[in-house]
Amino acid sequence: MKPFLSLKSVDEILAMLVGFEPLPGEAVPLDMALGRYIKDDFFAPEDLPGFDRSTVDGWAVHARDVFGASEGSPALLDCVEGCAMGRAADFALGEGQAARILTGGMLPSGADCCVKVEHSREISGGMVELVRSVAPGDNVVAHDEDAARGEILIESGAQLRAQEIGLLAALGQASVRVARRPRVAIISTGDEVVPMEARPAPGQVRDVNSHSLSALCRMAGAEPELAGLVKDDAGMLREAVCRALDSSDVVLVSGGSSAGMRDFTVEIFTSMPESRLLAHGAAISPGKPFILASTGDKCMMGLPGHIASALVCARVFLLPFLRHLQGGKPAFPHCVRAVLSRQISSAQGRRDYIRACLRRDGDRWIADPLPGRSGVMSGMVRADAFVVCPENREGLYEGEEVVAQLLR
Amino acid sequence: MKPFLSLKSVDEILAMLVGFEPLPGEAVPLDMALGRYIKDDFFAPEDLPGFDRSTVDGWAVHARDVFGASEGSPALLDCVEGCAMGRAADFALGEGQAARILTGGMLPSGADCCVKVEHSREISGGMVELVRSVAPGDNVVAHDEDAARGEILIESGAQLRAQEIGLLAALGQASVRVARRPRVAIISTGDEVVPMEARPAPGQVRDVNSHSLSALCRMAGAEPELAGLVKDDAGMLREAVCRALDSSDVVLVSGGSSAGMRDFTVEIFTSMPESRLLAHGAAISPGKPFILASTGDKCMMGLPGHIASALVCARVFLLPFLRHLQGGKPAFPHCVRAVLSRQISSAQGRRDYIRACLRRDGDRWIADPLPGRSGVMSGMVRADAFVVCPENREGLYEGEEVVAQLLR
Repeated sequence: MKPFLSLKSVDEILAMLVGFEPLPGEAVPLDMALGRYIKDDFFAPEDLPGFDRSTVDGWAVHARDVFGASEGSPALLDCVEGCAMGRAADFALGEGQAARILTGGMLPSGADCCVKVEHSREISGGMVELVRSVAPGDNVVAHDEDAARGEILIESGAQLRAQEIGLLAALGQASVRVARRPRVAIISTGDEVVPMEARPAPGQVRDVNSHSLSALCRMAGAEPELAGLVKDDAGMLREAVCRALDSSDVVLVSGGSSAGMRDFTVEIFTSMPESRLLAHGAAISPGKPFILASTGDKCMMGLPGHIASALVCARVFLLPFLRHLQGGKPAFPHCVRAVLSRQISSAQGRRDYIRACLRRDGDRWIADPLPGRSGVMSGMVRADAFVVCPENREGLYEGEEVVAQLLR
Repeated sequence: MKPFLSLKSVDEILAMLVGFEPLPGEAVPLDMALGRYIKDDFFAPEDLPGFDRSTVDGWAVHARDVFGASEGSPALLDCVEGCAMGRAADFALGEGQAARILTGGMLPSGADCCVKVEHSREISGGMVELVRSVAPGDNVVAHDEDAARGEILIESGAQLRAQEIGLLAALGQASVRVARRPRVAIISTGDEVVPMEARPAPGQVRDVNSHSLSALCRMAGAEPELAGLVKDDAGMLREAVCRALDSSDVVLVSGGSSAGMRDFTVEIFTSMPESRLLAHGAAISPGKPFILASTGDKCMMGLPGHIASALVCARVFLLPFLRHLQGGKPAFPHCVRAVLSRQISSAQGRRDYIRACLRRDGDRWIADPLPGRSGVMSGMVRADAFVVCPENREGLYEGEEVVAQLLR
């Protein structure tokens, strides 16, 4: 008789994962920093743009000189020399004067706003008529409007998007300190598993989990390492886990995580120095035989060998964990609301991740649940999303509005 | 007086972008294929798993031998030798026989289902009692259940996720043909712009758009190339555009796209061989001075120099275009529904992309619009999402439910 697992809830496991220490930082060139998590709060080292800057093609003026100007009663100003781009003007604007300026140009001292060229008429004698009243600061970005020196611009743990990269470039940060990428060693187990390149004999299957888990790790900004394909042999598996722990932050073992006849994983995890078994069994379907353990500050996860189960566990537990290790805040959900096209039965006390296709019907989404067996991966390939049936429900009704978590 | 632009709608421009020819394919190693778009339909080259496979630890049997079995009335079967993992059994199961089998094992000929070990009792004399009735196919993945030879498994244009990588590995595809990455040359213009590494003198600003646009291109699977920082000089810009066209599929020019005094871009684009000006001006805010042109099968885009405008245009037009060039189907929206915390006024006839922060309030999201000036980038950094005000609306109401497009 095989022993029964004692299941932990998804939320309990997620809470334990947050207990691991985030990784240290490293400096990377800015152009390689997309998607990485910034390590420290970033404060503006200087004002941005650093000078009062026109946002229009037109005239730099002092607001009092165009006060009340209109089409019927234009302000008449002296044209002085124009503001060259990329340089400070070597003159100060006097009373009653206007200086030609282009978008992005620096206002001369004495000017406090700009009038658009569309609202001007050049007339003879070096004069210009301005037909619009503007207030101080109009059509100008003030010297510290984008960022004031010392202001916090990016909070530690933010994932760097195109706009953060741009702001860091604007402030001359050719390199940026981000969390080191988590190193994840992936071990596949099973006497019947052969490498992807091999032609399987009858009874053999190719290694799938090394490749799909590795892809998920990359997606989450981690560095996967294929740490071997191990036979169902406790000694060999122990050796592979020890070796993997040397060079990585997280060790994943796929296969052998249940309480079945060839499941050594939990025994090997718990034999590591200072090890703690945090969970053996998760109240999740598919993916129940999930194992979570620690040794020192490193994390060991046992994932079911079944392909769909391994991927569900990895999406539910590994992806947020890899984000946490990089100091990232929880991500915005990538979801749509959809109407379920047929009833799904589940079991109370576990969280079900049902694979579903999405299709558009007018202005709503319809979720079609896919028949999903955990050993079958083509269902995961057809799926656009997971529909989640929570622990306190025994099923979901046809026609019910559900949240579909998109599978990137 | 500067000329007025003749604006095209966002949808008109998106429709024109789909007219460009998608890029050819190239073979890449499977482990580098995450996020790429598969070039051709992928058909199963063989059955998967290729043999009838147990999904449980237990006993391989013929269903008729356990018909009607229960706790009270078990079926009594002869134990024959077990099925070794990773090999075909060298025996056939006879009537009244049961063979021990592990999860993932291959059924011997003569067996058509499996009984879980939990539902068995081994008794003396090489016999086993099975206490559950099972039907043919129970606890078994059939030889072609995951994929049948010749079946279409992945449609051309699918973006490869972890599960597609896994399925391709399972079928021995160590390399896969995907669309070539679009090559995007990025040219920044402006007399006042200096490289990121430089210390700007008064009136100068660092080059932002090269870096932020480059990051957006990477996000979309393209290969950006920084094709230079060009002064406001038509001859130099023409030369830079010609050179960039030689080595790229798309040329982006940021700055000089309006109809202002130093805006040569449209004139240079239209002077290229076989050029067609598809749009000069988009009914979008920010980002109005957008230019779209073609020369042969290559695309040229002029983006506004203002940082926020450039990023909005690039997100709205460039990202879906890069997906199209890779043969990708339109992506699922990455959105949440949110309640607007204050009124926004817009103008009829244009589509407004309002930067907003999102916060949680009970079970709903609240979108706080950010004051956004197009020359200011810190607003883009604070923003979690765009709230879109469509062409037929003059504004959005406080308390209105809106769709917030998350800014990855």
